[in-house]
Amino acid sequence: MKTVAKGSDEKKENGNNSKKTLGQEALELHKRLRGKIEIRSKVSVKSPREISIAYTPGVAEVCLEIAADRERAYEYTSKRNNVAIVTDGTRTLGLGSLGPEAALPVMEGKALLYKEFGNVDAFPICLKTADAEEIIRTVKYISPVFGAINVEDIETPKALEITERLTEELDIPVFHDDQHGTAVVTLAALLNAMKFTKREPGRTSVVVAGAGSAGYGIVKILRAIGITDIIVTDSYGVVSKSRPVDTMNKYKIELASITNVPEGVNSLIDAVRGKDVFIGVSGVKNLLTSALVRTMNKDPVIFPLTNPDPEIHPKDAADAGARVIATGSYKFENRANNALVFPFTMRAILDNRVRRISQQLLVAVAYALAELIPKVELRPFNIIPDVTDPRIQPAVSKAVQSLTVG
Amino acid sequence: MKTVAKGSDEKKENGNNSKKTLGQEALELHKRLRGKIEIRSKVSVKSPREISIAYTPGVAEVCLEIAADRERAYEYTSKRNNVAIVTDGTRTLGLGSLGPEAALPVMEGKALLYKEFGNVDAFPICLKTADAEEIIRTVKYISPVFGAINVEDIETPKALEITERLTEELDIPVFHDDQHGTAVVTLAALLNAMKFTKREPGRTSVVVAGAGSAGYGIVKILRAIGITDIIVTDSYGVVSKSRPVDTMNKYKIELASITNVPEGVNSLIDAVRGKDVFIGVSGVKNLLTSALVRTMNKDPVIFPLTNPDPEIHPKDAADAGARVIATGSYKFENRANNALVFPFTMRAILDNRVRRISQQLLVAVAYALAELIPKVELRPFNIIPDVTDPRIQPAVSKAVQSLTVG
Repeated sequence: MKTVAKGSDEKKENGNNSKKTLGQEALELHKRLRGKIEIRSKVSVKSPREISIAYTPGVAEVCLEIAADRERAYEYTSKRNNVAIVTDGTRTLGLGSLGPEAALPVMEGKALLYKEFGNVDAFPICLKTADAEEIIRTVKYISPVFGAINVEDIETPKALEITERLTEELDIPVFHDDQHGTAVVTLAALLNAMKFTKREPGRTSVVVAGAGSAGYGIVKILRAIGITDIIVTDSYGVVSKSRPVDTMNKYKIELASITNVPEGVNSLIDAVRGKDVFIGVSGVKNLLTSALVRTMNKDPVIFPLTNPDPEIHPKDAADAGARVIATGSYKFENRANNALVFPFTMRAILDNRVRRISQQLLVAVAYALAELIPKVELRPFNIIPDVTDPRIQPAVSKAVQSLTVG
Repeated sequence: MKTVAKGSDEKKENGNNSKKTLGQEALELHKRLRGKIEIRSKVSVKSPREISIAYTPGVAEVCLEIAADRERAYEYTSKRNNVAIVTDGTRTLGLGSLGPEAALPVMEGKALLYKEFGNVDAFPICLKTADAEEIIRTVKYISPVFGAINVEDIETPKALEITERLTEELDIPVFHDDQHGTAVVTLAALLNAMKFTKREPGRTSVVVAGAGSAGYGIVKILRAIGITDIIVTDSYGVVSKSRPVDTMNKYKIELASITNVPEGVNSLIDAVRGKDVFIGVSGVKNLLTSALVRTMNKDPVIFPLTNPDPEIHPKDAADAGARVIATGSYKFENRANNALVFPFTMRAILDNRVRRISQQLLVAVAYALAELIPKVELRPFNIIPDVTDPRIQPAVSKAVQSLTVG
C-alpha cells in the first residue's frame, strides 16, 4: 500500500504540522516506512504446481535456454528492466562523503522516481569502497543482472573516470546522471530560454560555475549544439591551461582546451561580465551576487542549479534583471531537475537496447523536452515541462527511437 | 498485477494444455512476464512536495542521521529487509555451471518465494566471476544495502569457504541455503520419521550420499542432535581419511573425522547395509536401487532429496520396504524442499537481528517445523508441513526469538 508523504498520522500527532520542515517530515516518513522500495512478485507461487513452473523444476528449461545464448536473458528475465544505481557515498547530495549506508535513502528515492516516471526497476548498490578500480571491478561483476548502470553521487573526477571505463568495458549502457542528466535538463531549459530571449547558440556566451561532473557534461552538450563562447570556473577561478597543474585534472584540462578564456579573465567576477547566460553547478550557496548579475548582458539567463540552495535566490536574480531563471530545486518555479530526464531517458534506452550514451542521444532528448513548451507559451517561469507531464515519455521515447532506427 | 503460472492465454492458444511439460509452461510464463520480480514504491512521489520529502531536499536530513550512526540504516531504509541472493552460476540447480545470466531465473524464483512466504525483499546478485576471493570481496562491497546474504548455487567446496569467510568478515548474517536450508528441512523430516518408526537419535544409523554443501550441512546438524552413527559417501565411495588426498578437500576431511567408517566399508553398497536411514543429496538420479534398500534395516527411512530426479523413485523405495519416504521435489508427497525453511527462517533472522547462523538456531527451526505435525497425525506421507501452512512462520519466529532472548 502506498503511503502519501504527508500522512494523516503525523497531523494527529502534531496539530501544528505546517511548521514542520521538509527534513522533519522526511525523517518521520522514513522512520514509518523503514524503506521506500520493496521487491514485488509478478507471478503467483502459492501452490506446488505454481512453484514448479516459476521455480524448480520447471525453471531449469529457462536456464538452459539462456545458457545456450545469454542474450536470451533479455527475453526471459528481469535483466531488460533492471538498473543498478551505483554509488560509493562520497558525494551524497551536496553533503559530501557520508559513506554508503547514508547514501541509501537518496538511492531509494531515485529508485522511486525511476519506477514512478519510467517504470524502470532500479536497485541501489551502495559500495563499501571508494577506490575507482574496485568500483569498476564490482560493477562489472554484478552486471549480468542489469540492463543498464546509473552512476550516482560519486565525487569528481572519479565519477567521470568510472563512467568512461565502464562505458568501454561493459556491454550495457552506463548513464551518469550527475553528468548526463544534468546536461540534458540544462540544455532543455536553455534552448527555450534562448528562444524566449531571442538568442542564437552561435552568438550566446555562457559562464558555467562548477567544473565537476555536471559542469563537464554541460560544456560538452553546449558545444554539441554550437555554443562555443563558454568560460568554466571552479573554486580556484577560471579553468585554464595556465593554472598550476595541481589545480587541474584530466577533465579540467579537457575543459580548458574546449573553452575560450580571454586574456585577463581570471575570476568568476571577470568571467560573468558581459555574458548572456550563467549556469551554476558549483555546490556553493549564494555564489552569484545581485551586483554580478548586473554586470551581465541585458536580459541575462540565470540557472543557479545547485541543490538544495542555489547560487542566487531566484527573487534576487529577478530583482537584478535576470530575464529567465531556473533552479534545480522543487522549492522554486522552472524546476530544471534531473528527474525530468533520467526516468524517461532510461525507459527509452532500455526499450531500444541502446548500448552507449552518445552526445547525440542527450541532445535529442533535450530538444524533445524543450519542444513540449510551444514558443507562444514560453514565459520567464514556463520554459520546461513539469515532471508529471504525460507527454514527456512519448516525446523522449520517440527521440531516442529515431536515433536507433536511423 | 500478479499472473498465475498457468494463464488463460495459454489455454486459448493450446487446447491441449494438459500435455505441456512443466518446462514448456515455464518457458511460456517467463517469456510472457520477462522478469518475475519488480521494484515497487512504498511511497507516492507524484507532486513536487512529495518528491521533496521522499527525495531531495528533505531526504538530506535522513542521510545525516545515518552518517552520524550507520546503525540507523536499519531504522530509516530498506536495509533491514533486503537480502542479496548471491551466486556465480557454477552450480545452477542440478545443471552444473551455466554462467551468471542463466542462473538469474532461479534466483528470481527464489526471490518470489522469499517475498511470498517470508515477506523478505530479496534481490538476485549473479556474479560474472567464479573466483572465491573476488566473490567474497564483491559481497563485502555491496553489503551496506543488505540486512543478510543468501549464498546460492555455488559449487562445493567454494560455497562452504565463501560462507565461512563472509560469516567471519561481515557484520550481517550469511545464510547458505544449500547447506543450512537443506540441513534444517532434512532434520525436520527425519525427526518425525524417527518418531513414527520409533527410533532414537543415539541409536539411529544414517548414510548420507553426497559430500557437497548439503551433505556437509546435514552431517553437522545430525551430530548436533546426537546422531553419531553416520557414513558419508560421494562419487569415490565412502568418505574416509584413508582415501587418496586428491579425492578429499578441507570439508571432506572434516566429515571423515566426525563420521565413523567400520573396517571394510568402502562403497555405497557396503555403507547402506544394515542402516536405518538413507539421505540422498548426491545429484545422481537412480543412485539407490531397490536391491540396496532391501539390505537396510527393517522399516528404513529413505530421503532421496536430489532434484529434479531423486536417487530412487518413491514408489520403488516403497515397494522395496521403505517405511517413510521424502523427496525434495514438488512432484511427490512429503516435500522436504528448502522452501520450507529459507523464507521463514530469514524473516525470523531479520526481525531478531541475528548476526550469525548457529547450529543451535538451525536445530531450533527444524524442531519447530517437525512439531507442527502432532505425533498422532504422523503417517508415512505426512511427516512435514506444506510450505503454505500458515503455522510455519509463527513457529519458526518463536523458535528463533527464544534463542536470541535467552
